[in-house]
Amino acid sequence: MTDRLDRQTAFLLEIDRLKSVERAQPIADGSRRETSGEHSWHVALFALVLADQARQGVDIDRVIRMLLIHDIVEIDAGDTPIHGDHDPVAQAAAEQAAADRIFSLLPPDLATELRGLWDEFEAGDSEDARFARALDRVQPPLLNAAAGGGSWRDYGVTLDNIDTRVAPAAHRGAPALWAYVRRRIAPYFTAE
Amino acid sequence: MTDRLDRQTAFLLEIDRLKSVERAQPIADGSRRETSGEHSWHVALFALVLADQARQGVDIDRVIRMLLIHDIVEIDAGDTPIHGDHDPVAQAAAEQAAADRIFSLLPPDLATELRGLWDEFEAGDSEDARFARALDRVQPPLLNAAAGGGSWRDYGVTLDNIDTRVAPAAHRGAPALWAYVRRRIAPYFTAE
Repeated sequence: MTDRLDRQTAFLLEIDRLKSVERAQPIADGSRRETSGEHSWHVALFALVLADQARQGVDIDRVIRMLLIHDIVEIDAGDTPIHGDHDPVAQAAAEQAAADRIFSLLPPDLATELRGLWDEFEAGDSEDARFARALDRVQPPLLNAAAGGGSWRDYGVTLDNIDTRVAPAAHRGAPALWAYVRRRIAPYFTAE
Repeated sequence: MTDRLDRQTAFLLEIDRLKSVERAQPIADGSRRETSGEHSWHVALFALVLADQARQGVDIDRVIRMLLIHDIVEIDAGDTPIHGDHDPVAQAAAEQAAADRIFSLLPPDLATELRGLWDEFEAGDSEDARFARALDRVQPPLLNAAAGGGSWRDYGVTLDNIDTRVAPAAHRGAPALWAYVRRRIAPYFTAE
């Protein structure tokens, strides 16, 4: 059992580094950038509180588990701001390599379970993954709007950019929620 | 539906402030103190990864939900380091007032559900709550040990202090896990 606990705690201490990965958008008060660790907590709570926005049959507890682990590859691969420039092929390769390294710290049964959840989130083909991905798209605009611009200002983002880059996955997994959020954030852009 | 979404998002933006509540112990690399937001993420992952340490019948998804919300009262009431001095009666009153205010931002059905989970965690009488409380006790010593002392050094903590303040709740909810963690952290204190 000690070897199993050694592996479980090695993984839990390794992922602590996600608390040091900075994201593009600020926390809601605008005082600093959000980290991927706290983002992962916040979007898990989005799933808990906005569960009634999921399509019938979505398993909210699976969505929460997915969101808790969805960003841990950023420990090695870094965060890729949705409004920034990056090479999607190179980034996907870096994230796969990170997933290989980080999940393999776990005992094999847990490695398979959590890697499966991460792969499902990445593929975005299941209803659970679609809802999880929608929440991951909905949270940053709400923080940017609360902070008076945030990464929209840093990256010169327009409402057209939002409709191209953010809206598709948000609308696919949580259409009514996205319609609400878009109504809330639109005044920021028309006032610019 | 808009009024409901207004209340759900008001709650989700309010709890963003948990990202600015500092805890006593550092993150694992010792570079800064942990925030309560990222702590909440980390302990939820402890539940996911250490599920096999729970007693039979414990519902890990309920434990994860509990851990995601267990600290949100700190937005108003602040964090109370286990090795620090505080008035437990005044602190409990502040936390109850915080729970009243923060959960009531939600639509009534969600307020009742999440307040119920928080009350259950606080009471610590159910097997789910005991396991959640044990994980909340197990995580900080692992971070302190990784960081080479952390809040143990800041507060002059001895292994006796750990056995008095930390061990009871950790042992009650996850006895084998606590025995393992205590073995791991003991060398730090005997080397001092």
